[in-house]
Amino acid sequence: MANDKFVQKVTSRDEDFAQWYTDVVREAKLCDYSSVKGCLNYLPNGYAIWENIQKDLDQRFKDTGVENVYLPVLIPESLLKKEAKHIEGFAPEVAWVTQGGGEELEERMCIRPTSETLFCDLWKNKVKSYRDLPLVWNQWNTVLRWEKTTRPFLRSREFLWQEGHTIHATYEEAEERTLQMWKVYIDFVQDDLAIPLVVGKKTESEKFAGAEDTYTIEAMMHDGKSLQSGTSHFFGSGFPDAFDIKYLDKENKLHSCYETSWGLSTRIIGALIMVHGDDSGLVLPPRIAPTQAMVIPIAQHKDGVLDEANKLLDSLKAAGIRAKIDDSEKSPGYKFAEQEMLGIPVRIEIGPKDIENGEVVVVRRNDREKITVKIKDVAKELPKILESIQSDMFKTAKKFLDSHIFKATNMDEMKEIANNNIGFIKAMWCGEEACEDEIKAATGGYGSRCIDEEHEHLADKCVFCGKDAKETVIWGKSY
Amino acid sequence: MANDKFVQKVTSRDEDFAQWYTDVVREAKLCDYSSVKGCLNYLPNGYAIWENIQKDLDQRFKDTGVENVYLPVLIPESLLKKEAKHIEGFAPEVAWVTQGGGEELEERMCIRPTSETLFCDLWKNKVKSYRDLPLVWNQWNTVLRWEKTTRPFLRSREFLWQEGHTIHATYEEAEERTLQMWKVYIDFVQDDLAIPLVVGKKTESEKFAGAEDTYTIEAMMHDGKSLQSGTSHFFGSGFPDAFDIKYLDKENKLHSCYETSWGLSTRIIGALIMVHGDDSGLVLPPRIAPTQAMVIPIAQHKDGVLDEANKLLDSLKAAGIRAKIDDSEKSPGYKFAEQEMLGIPVRIEIGPKDIENGEVVVVRRNDREKITVKIKDVAKELPKILESIQSDMFKTAKKFLDSHIFKATNMDEMKEIANNNIGFIKAMWCGEEACEDEIKAATGGYGSRCIDEEHEHLADKCVFCGKDAKETVIWGKSY
Repeated sequence: MANDKFVQKVTSRDEDFAQWYTDVVREAKLCDYSSVKGCLNYLPNGYAIWENIQKDLDQRFKDTGVENVYLPVLIPESLLKKEAKHIEGFAPEVAWVTQGGGEELEERMCIRPTSETLFCDLWKNKVKSYRDLPLVWNQWNTVLRWEKTTRPFLRSREFLWQEGHTIHATYEEAEERTLQMWKVYIDFVQDDLAIPLVVGKKTESEKFAGAEDTYTIEAMMHDGKSLQSGTSHFFGSGFPDAFDIKYLDKENKLHSCYETSWGLSTRIIGALIMVHGDDSGLVLPPRIAPTQAMVIPIAQHKDGVLDEANKLLDSLKAAGIRAKIDDSEKSPGYKFAEQEMLGIPVRIEIGPKDIENGEVVVVRRNDREKITVKIKDVAKELPKILESIQSDMFKTAKKFLDSHIFKATNMDEMKEIANNNIGFIKAMWCGEEACEDEIKAATGGYGSRCIDEEHEHLADKCVFCGKDAKETVIWGKSY
Repeated sequence: MANDKFVQKVTSRDEDFAQWYTDVVREAKLCDYSSVKGCLNYLPNGYAIWENIQKDLDQRFKDTGVENVYLPVLIPESLLKKEAKHIEGFAPEVAWVTQGGGEELEERMCIRPTSETLFCDLWKNKVKSYRDLPLVWNQWNTVLRWEKTTRPFLRSREFLWQEGHTIHATYEEAEERTLQMWKVYIDFVQDDLAIPLVVGKKTESEKFAGAEDTYTIEAMMHDGKSLQSGTSHFFGSGFPDAFDIKYLDKENKLHSCYETSWGLSTRIIGALIMVHGDDSGLVLPPRIAPTQAMVIPIAQHKDGVLDEANKLLDSLKAAGIRAKIDDSEKSPGYKFAEQEMLGIPVRIEIGPKDIENGEVVVVRRNDREKITVKIKDVAKELPKILESIQSDMFKTAKKFLDSHIFKATNMDEMKEIANNNIGFIKAMWCGEEACEDEIKAATGGYGSRCIDEEHEHLADKCVFCGKDAKETVIWGKSY
């Protein structure tokens, strides 16, 4: 770790994980707090990651037939109130607009915390016949929830996300769409972000306000805690019935509709940092990194170095690689440290000797492996190197995840694991909310992250109460 | 116009332009009013146009070094108040959040009507030295202005836009950036949207609240009225001084900063409709059209027709053309009318006879010209046809614009032109706001759109008061 000396300002990850996280966010200039309490300024380095996430995920949505729309930022109170569980869940954390254009409003309106009610309100006028169904829509927007405590990306009053909303003629079709979009999230996060996942259905107590089923993807951070990274909700006909949306079927009979919604937010940037980052800063997976390769000239004042470096840069760009050059007057060591802090997947060192030998040194950010490559081959070789970094980053994270999932069949085991390890614990559960609460209290915070999708049978009885077990649950602390 | 019978619901453009506009927006399913007063639902057909605008314009921004960011949706009242003219301009039309998380806020916050104050607040902490400058940032977001009367795309309480904000070390550099971004808008709107422009500086009375200079691009709608389609503002050091943003120059002396901002909004979709549309609906320029070509099979129940049509579709997609097929059970005539209503630049008719002859008929939306093309050549020929439509649409619109700009040297002439024509009038002006008001009143609404960029000299005296003329102004009614 020869570069440690250049990174002065980042706390060691293993020493103080929370401080390390804050330091990386600050030093990599991803975002900072605005003077609007609890709201972030997304700075260029952070927002560029979000732009790439949007681009990749949006294409995956469109490949399944999703169309994008945009609905209002405001929701009148009467509309928010139409679905009982929904308003119960969201009312305490909304912000209300009470004055507009110099006058008190007749009805207050909240800034949307999520848009189920607006979609229902729109669909009430659009959906009349089976010919109008399905509608498979999504919007990229901002939402606001009045959180008391906030952390960059992980929890802030305002955050950016996409919220997909769909309406269907049958229960089965809506259920299928719920699972399809869940699968899109799983593939996107594992393939593009190199983040391995634990996935499954949420228990009753952890479901979205108003949903019949919530499917989640959960990522394990380097401190062993879980970050809920995306959810897909099946609503049944609850919302459309509450809004009196019905359609005439082929036999001209009035029929209920079925809905889904699904969302992924800027929280996921927090996961990128906490799954892949190290003591030198960010480590970004090549597929999502705004800059994939940084060319760093060595002894750039010497004849021909900058020329060769720029020629190399041009050849990389021509090959479709997101490459930049750092030809500033900083020292090479400083430039290395900066490239590492920003998590740029490779740097390419090119100096007079390299040029003489017709070679460059490619340094992989994730494991600092140095690869000597002929200058004429760099544009051809780099895509392979980037793909191998992508795949190695996933493997490393997967190994960490797998080695931090434990199994318990009674509370003594569970408490012992919780006391001596970080990570998740698999254990059987009776299905009662009271037991969830007890388990969480007894283990110092292990809540149900999701029901094990593999339904691995560990025991016949609930780990807490000893009654017949209904589900295998994955328990963990969470952000 | 054999297809007129299929388009039942659109008022004739020449009969009632306002009603025609409303009809096209509705029938092409671009947007509709939500139950949130004055706020729109952007539906898939309308939002897809906005997505293409974003994509093209964003690339043009990035080519000039712009970085994207995202700042909060809320502005505390004390922040909005810091620049005197700015608050004067915006205070009457903002919406105030007064409650959050179940409590009354200590300070009310407005939903941003524009974000100059937020950028200044952020930069106050970021800009210390000449090394920190320039910052050239942009955000794509939503803004809210409490308009009393609203029209789809043209004026709504909430609208989508981009707002660029930059800060510089020198007056000259900021001025140059103002002009550079103005040029980006001019090129984008003329080249990609095929909308010819009148461009120039705004007069004092029409400037943005807080700006030293505002540069505008103005498009002429088919009813002769102007739509302000994008603006670039030079702020001098007004805003940064009000926020006490100073930097240390190379000699370690404190120095003022200079700012710009520039914006283009979903209003521009209104311009697309009103410049290019006709009695059959939308006419979209190929470069921005979400779907560029619609394949319409004729007698599709007959053997081989759908197969050939789908093969053709695949070849178009492979050639990078945004193509779709309408293989629904509607009649071909109905499909033609629908494709025309949506403004899809070409339809490709393919039936049993065409297949026999190895040909298809390509019909251009803009002028209904029919072109017979060998099936094997379509993928190769279509990009050329689309480019020729793009260029012909610009020419047609330019001819309309040029033939509707009149010149006047006295008020009698001006009134006569205003009474008998639609369009713009060029006339000399003394520089006094009072004269602008008088001219507007005397002509039934011809306000100053901009100062003539060519400074064409028409007379020595102001067209209204007879005092020495200072500027050539382009006058027009406006949206």
